[in-house]
Amino acid sequence: VPSSRELELIQAIERVTESRDERLVRWIGDDAAVVRSRPFAVTSIDSVADGVHFELATHSPADVGWKALAQALSDIAAMGAEAGEAYVALALPREFEPEAVLELVGGMEELAAATATTIAGGDLIAAPALVVTVAVTGWADEEAQIVGRDGARPRDLVGVTGGLGASAAGLLALRGAAPPDEELIRRHRRPEPRLSAGRALAAAGASAMIDLSDGLATDAGHVARLSRVELRLSLGELPLSPGVAEAARAAGRDALELAATGGDDYELLVSFAPERRELAEEAAAAAGVPITWLGEVREGSGVALVGPDGAVRTGLHGFEHL
Amino acid sequence: VPSSRELELIQAIERVTESRDERLVRWIGDDAAVVRSRPFAVTSIDSVADGVHFELATHSPADVGWKALAQALSDIAAMGAEAGEAYVALALPREFEPEAVLELVGGMEELAAATATTIAGGDLIAAPALVVTVAVTGWADEEAQIVGRDGARPRDLVGVTGGLGASAAGLLALRGAAPPDEELIRRHRRPEPRLSAGRALAAAGASAMIDLSDGLATDAGHVARLSRVELRLSLGELPLSPGVAEAARAAGRDALELAATGGDDYELLVSFAPERRELAEEAAAAAGVPITWLGEVREGSGVALVGPDGAVRTGLHGFEHL
Repeated sequence: VPSSRELELIQAIERVTESRDERLVRWIGDDAAVVRSRPFAVTSIDSVADGVHFELATHSPADVGWKALAQALSDIAAMGAEAGEAYVALALPREFEPEAVLELVGGMEELAAATATTIAGGDLIAAPALVVTVAVTGWADEEAQIVGRDGARPRDLVGVTGGLGASAAGLLALRGAAPPDEELIRRHRRPEPRLSAGRALAAAGASAMIDLSDGLATDAGHVARLSRVELRLSLGELPLSPGVAEAARAAGRDALELAATGGDDYELLVSFAPERRELAEEAAAAAGVPITWLGEVREGSGVALVGPDGAVRTGLHGFEHL
Repeated sequence: VPSSRELELIQAIERVTESRDERLVRWIGDDAAVVRSRPFAVTSIDSVADGVHFELATHSPADVGWKALAQALSDIAAMGAEAGEAYVALALPREFEPEAVLELVGGMEELAAATATTIAGGDLIAAPALVVTVAVTGWADEEAQIVGRDGARPRDLVGVTGGLGASAAGLLALRGAAPPDEELIRRHRRPEPRLSAGRALAAAGASAMIDLSDGLATDAGHVARLSRVELRLSLGELPLSPGVAEAARAAGRDALELAATGGDDYELLVSFAPERRELAEEAAAAAGVPITWLGEVREGSGVALVGPDGAVRTGLHGFEHL
């Protein structure tokens, strides 16, 4: 039986990936990967498609691989779990050459190495368009470590890690709507999931947590809906990443709205009982990231985004996947 | 924040799916699903794409959903593990309407219900073509229960569950190359993963196991390669499914070659030490499926497919995903 193109490519992928997981009993090459478990498995699946979530004109295959894994790992971060294994399905158009596939997996492996994740299995298929799907399993030892979207309570403070708007501003720069800015473009192409911050904030007693993939306006809405509360957030408090104000101005956009609706920042939005405020700040600082308080949880529903003038801005919403 | 098309669809999907998993702590709707583990997690990921693995002209959306899950579950069966949770990523072209998405998930849910699997999470994205990716986690309590592709040893017997060729013959019928045959077409559209047989054969001491997704010729090659042995199999012993000989004749194809190279049968190819032959047969019978012995394992490499005339047939290989 002659080796197929698929088999050769899988074997090349085995050579560019590395198992950094003592718990892995079987990996790439068998029907399925086998992992010695920890008590709670935390699993998420995410896809990105050419022309929708990235464009091969502005993203290298390695950027695409990185981003696809980053997006899935960010969900694990938002649960407060530790990263474990990634399973990768690549739907490849004919013109996407084997070298590009290896470059894509290489970019994913770079982020895997940086986050102690192991690419443990995968599938390669032919398809009319490039679609990269990553399922990631993270692990936790106790149920109390895990933070959902549904635990925000009235009077809780709502905070966000890091800075907002960098990815959206980087995209403006890539499209020529704002001046080139290497750092913003890097943040767009190579977002970093907040795994340490997620674990630290969970351990500090976060009541709810979500990662900002679709943009604050949309993602805060998920917390409000599942927690059956209102999130009242001050746009004026949004921590703009460096360069975002300038990029927004150049593009004729409102910087605060750009930061509130731009997707792909992969920061964590988190709520805490007010008496845990200092614990939360210490936890974030220990994980090497600032936390900025944006507002609070109230009885009610939905998200109220309050402008610097005190008026609620309506009609703001984030990135739509469909 | 207005509900998005994605959110509405996810909520509709929540309504058509059901948790049948006491171990599930959190599911669809949060950043990730959370499952109370058993000692070994067995995970596989598989994609199918329109125009490559199915055609919407001959497969209903429900068939597509069923098939995508069946393919992933079949890998769990081939490890001897128990089905657990499925995570589903749907890349949807604009013209694939929400009703079709729900029908697709409904077909998947039908198979999930039949196999005690829970659809525990997912992602929906827009894409230029329909691609359905399913990651499935199965569970095992002991490492010894898990059977890989690498354990076949010289003198082992090689057997296969059930019948072969039904899916390939069903495809011939769908394409009009063979007369319509409802049962063959059903086997092509709604393959059934051999989960009980997989567990039973593993418990009976199978030395290696693989599911037949790409066709016997190709999949036996994976066992030979990873076990560093030769598999010598008699084409004349292949258990043709009812109707396959007739369909092959009508299409001007050799029935044995069709059964050896046709993909998507999702039967299990398994090896056993000769002294376990009866145990294997009892295990298969208890799981409600026949096992047919096709040949044996020898020192060497590759797969020798021996025709009824005693000559090795070369050049046979199965379905290529790329």
